[in-house]
Amino acid sequence: MKAYFDHGATTPVDPLVLKAMKPYFSLKFGNASSIHEFGRETHEALDQARKVIADSIGAEPSEIIFTSGGTESNNLAIKGLAQAKGSGHIITSKIEHHAVLMTCKYLEKQGFKVTYLPVDNEGFVNASDLKKAMTKNTILVTVMHANNEIGTVEPIDELARIAHEGGALFHTDAVQSFTKIPINVKEMNLDLVSLSAHKIHGPKGVGALYVRKGLRIQKQLEGGVHEFNLRAGTENIPGIVGFAKAVKLAKPEHVVYMTELRDKIINELLKIPGTRFNGAKKKRLCNNINISLMGVEGESILLGLDALGIAVSTGSACSSKNLKASHVLTAIGSKPEESHGSIRITLGRENTREEVDYLIKNIVKTVKRFKEMNSL
Amino acid sequence: MKAYFDHGATTPVDPLVLKAMKPYFSLKFGNASSIHEFGRETHEALDQARKVIADSIGAEPSEIIFTSGGTESNNLAIKGLAQAKGSGHIITSKIEHHAVLMTCKYLEKQGFKVTYLPVDNEGFVNASDLKKAMTKNTILVTVMHANNEIGTVEPIDELARIAHEGGALFHTDAVQSFTKIPINVKEMNLDLVSLSAHKIHGPKGVGALYVRKGLRIQKQLEGGVHEFNLRAGTENIPGIVGFAKAVKLAKPEHVVYMTELRDKIINELLKIPGTRFNGAKKKRLCNNINISLMGVEGESILLGLDALGIAVSTGSACSSKNLKASHVLTAIGSKPEESHGSIRITLGRENTREEVDYLIKNIVKTVKRFKEMNSL
Repeated sequence: MKAYFDHGATTPVDPLVLKAMKPYFSLKFGNASSIHEFGRETHEALDQARKVIADSIGAEPSEIIFTSGGTESNNLAIKGLAQAKGSGHIITSKIEHHAVLMTCKYLEKQGFKVTYLPVDNEGFVNASDLKKAMTKNTILVTVMHANNEIGTVEPIDELARIAHEGGALFHTDAVQSFTKIPINVKEMNLDLVSLSAHKIHGPKGVGALYVRKGLRIQKQLEGGVHEFNLRAGTENIPGIVGFAKAVKLAKPEHVVYMTELRDKIINELLKIPGTRFNGAKKKRLCNNINISLMGVEGESILLGLDALGIAVSTGSACSSKNLKASHVLTAIGSKPEESHGSIRITLGRENTREEVDYLIKNIVKTVKRFKEMNSL
Repeated sequence: MKAYFDHGATTPVDPLVLKAMKPYFSLKFGNASSIHEFGRETHEALDQARKVIADSIGAEPSEIIFTSGGTESNNLAIKGLAQAKGSGHIITSKIEHHAVLMTCKYLEKQGFKVTYLPVDNEGFVNASDLKKAMTKNTILVTVMHANNEIGTVEPIDELARIAHEGGALFHTDAVQSFTKIPINVKEMNLDLVSLSAHKIHGPKGVGALYVRKGLRIQKQLEGGVHEFNLRAGTENIPGIVGFAKAVKLAKPEHVVYMTELRDKIINELLKIPGTRFNGAKKKRLCNNINISLMGVEGESILLGLDALGIAVSTGSACSSKNLKASHVLTAIGSKPEESHGSIRITLGRENTREEVDYLIKNIVKTVKRFKEMNSL
């Protein structure tokens, strides 16, 4: 049996998404900037997709900029805002995805001041810490909606309110939460929101950035006047059409289903002696489980499960070839040995109950086997 | 009949390209950075594709960085090199694609000095003009391989040699020439080369940048350590696999075929009284025809042909919704009325002789009709 439990890294494209994309490869293939019929029909598809993405987060179509993915969206949001302002102070958290953290580090080298907020032992940014960190020079607060490693859902409504009270703007990386936790940019008062297609059963190579109307950011790709002159480059129409279809296919019942599987896995794995649960107990992504298995390496468990056709991860895929302890686990107070013993299981709506049973049984077995080997 | 003659803007994805991509959407969908089997199999596909692109231009696989397209490749090459150097002088031509021109204009605002070389009336950059423009501060010369509007093929070997003699590096935007004119980065002594998939019957949203071994450029997308730490973001595996397949499918006989069709179209259209031929007569892209039809608007011809199912363009798609006279035609000395009367026809290997006859017949008819209308 093959069983994929690494949906935080990427997801299979839904067959209906691929079906929606297909006509746009070889049949309706025009450049959306061309004024002839071939261009007009793809431009119409682009407009329709933009409306779907906008509607899904309570935005206007003119507030959606298509990008090549979540990383580009985060770079465009943070560098774009910082460069438009010219100078100032940025506040983020210690547990952001590298696309945010490294962008902040880059801006530090460019002369911006950056504060990295700590998190508590469940991974929450504390509103009072943000209040204290705000200065009259703070131009941007960027805190992720849900953490990619430990699934903690941050109180972004409250953090956005504090940012605005202090005269700063608020960006959130919603790549992991999108379609799993409702987002309404108007109600939540968000200025910039990063989205990605391939985490929600859409294609790789496509993302979007919500940019609140009237907000000025510096474009990062110079060239043509595509995407309201905020992102040059021929529009990836099949990818964008697939992204919109993926959004349409995401349903609240998937969240209910994944939550049930998640809780079953957590309950079963916590029966393993010495297991530590990582991340938020309640305000948690419906598909994320992160545990530390004391006395065994997460990497060994991963490879042991891999040999049985089961895919899990030890952290974010973007840094999985890097043996440093997870910056997220370190930030919630894990000791190095706990971090190294951690595995992340991220569910998808296509996971069956049978696969989940297979996963649980084999984690229990594999941990037991390694512990026995280690004790010899 | 529908007949598409705007391959300079984009091309239909070859059905064999789509076939090669298909397994990588829903079946082999892993994140290439994941260390489990799902990730290893896509990483293998990534390595293979990288080798195909590298081989096609005489490069090493480690010298190929995948991007989201030609625009990103040009931005990464030029900003990346400029920012790594910190300051200096850049030389480009007046007829570059906007992805290069606007990037140079951006860098001018950042304090870099930029010289925009003129071209002669066929669109050629003159080697002696480059020699004169070189200063001891020149860090980069960027001149396109073949022009997207008028098809002129620049003497990039010679320009690269002059750049190197003056201690500068050489970048070329080869988006239009790739697979149509042989490129060997070693023999031609190129330091940075931009490529794109969707101009060669590959998918939109994928490109590549050749970066000569040992050359240091500043990454433009911060995040994970993908693409030799020069471009963060989950790799677009289906797109990259499709790009490699498109390269494999491009054959020298397509060039011979398109050249024959091109010359037939040129010969027939030049029979129309008052027609002016734009661009190089000899050193010209095999698929490009650009003519000015005196006394009629190019835009009117485009729309007249569009009503008959024929797609041509008036300039580059990226600025086709912009009514300014083409910067390329202006640079080769066209008067505004000549520029406004210009149309661009760009062939693809799938164009039939029948389509070409249909095109010629209808251009002749349409021009005649508009001239009669104008004379009333």
